[in-house]
Amino acid sequence: MNKELLLKNLRNIPDFPVPGIQFKDVSSLFKNPECLKEMSDALYELYKDKGITKVAGIESRGFVMAASLALRLGAGFVPIRKLGKLPAETITETYGKEYGHDTIEIHKDAIDENDVVLVHDDLLATGGTMLAAYNLVKKLNPKKAMINFLIELEGLKGRDVFPADAQIDCLLSLEGK
Amino acid sequence: MNKELLLKNLRNIPDFPVPGIQFKDVSSLFKNPECLKEMSDALYELYKDKGITKVAGIESRGFVMAASLALRLGAGFVPIRKLGKLPAETITETYGKEYGHDTIEIHKDAIDENDVVLVHDDLLATGGTMLAAYNLVKKLNPKKAMINFLIELEGLKGRDVFPADAQIDCLLSLEGK
Repeated sequence: MNKELLLKNLRNIPDFPVPGIQFKDVSSLFKNPECLKEMSDALYELYKDKGITKVAGIESRGFVMAASLALRLGAGFVPIRKLGKLPAETITETYGKEYGHDTIEIHKDAIDENDVVLVHDDLLATGGTMLAAYNLVKKLNPKKAMINFLIELEGLKGRDVFPADAQIDCLLSLEGK
Repeated sequence: MNKELLLKNLRNIPDFPVPGIQFKDVSSLFKNPECLKEMSDALYELYKDKGITKVAGIESRGFVMAASLALRLGAGFVPIRKLGKLPAETITETYGKEYGHDTIEIHKDAIDENDVVLVHDDLLATGGTMLAAYNLVKKLNPKKAMINFLIELEGLKGRDVFPADAQIDCLLSLEGK
């Protein structure tokens, strides 16, 4: 993978959404056809031999590459959404955030015991949302579940919140927070 | 395109999000690898010769096929999001809804005068959100802008809200509301 291309095009936004945060604007990579293709190819190479049957994306930036990867793998795409957005029967998971908490959900029939699931989001920061998403997927008893991010902010040690046996891969690891 | 396959797998949810609405659950098509591929192939066939350089998707269901199509066309993907979610400089558009109003935005530098843009969403109902998205894109002066939906609910006459010269295509037209 051409890391330099991605790093060169990844826009940094200081103080968004709150002062002190250096926000990595992944939309700057989505917008650039070369970067979009680079990420898609890298994801495909990583996961083409894993027998994946469903790629779950976390609303809403996680939908972008998750659906594209599902298509390339011949898998289905499954949305994990904020509470109240999915129309059929769901299971939910609530997790703590810096202030208050949040709830995400997945359709109960989105995954079954024959599925090998990749759960994808754009960015690994503190890991709270992905841990909740991973727990949701596991509740539906797939054969296997794996985790993917485009970018990991190593300084925030988000990997530490996951169980030791969780299989986590990231395309880009950045030192920052 | 195999319409029967899509129609057979499109789940209908009565009374969601409010009583009286027959909600078309597009996630039932995304989840099914055959349906996902069928829609992706049909979109690619429709737009492969149009010189499209950017595919804009409306948050969040519109992200699913928009990003996948951008990849297949060698174009970039641009998100159109609810107010406050995009980190860099934006332009906004506010539109009326049944109760109150809503605002969406796009990054100011997401599109320029050399772009040919396809604006995509999953479902054409009354057309309000897409009209706002189309207006947003036009404000950035692309060479051309086109509109796409996966599904059109003809009974709601959503096409009527668009300017007469808007180029609108849908994969599936349903009679319902």
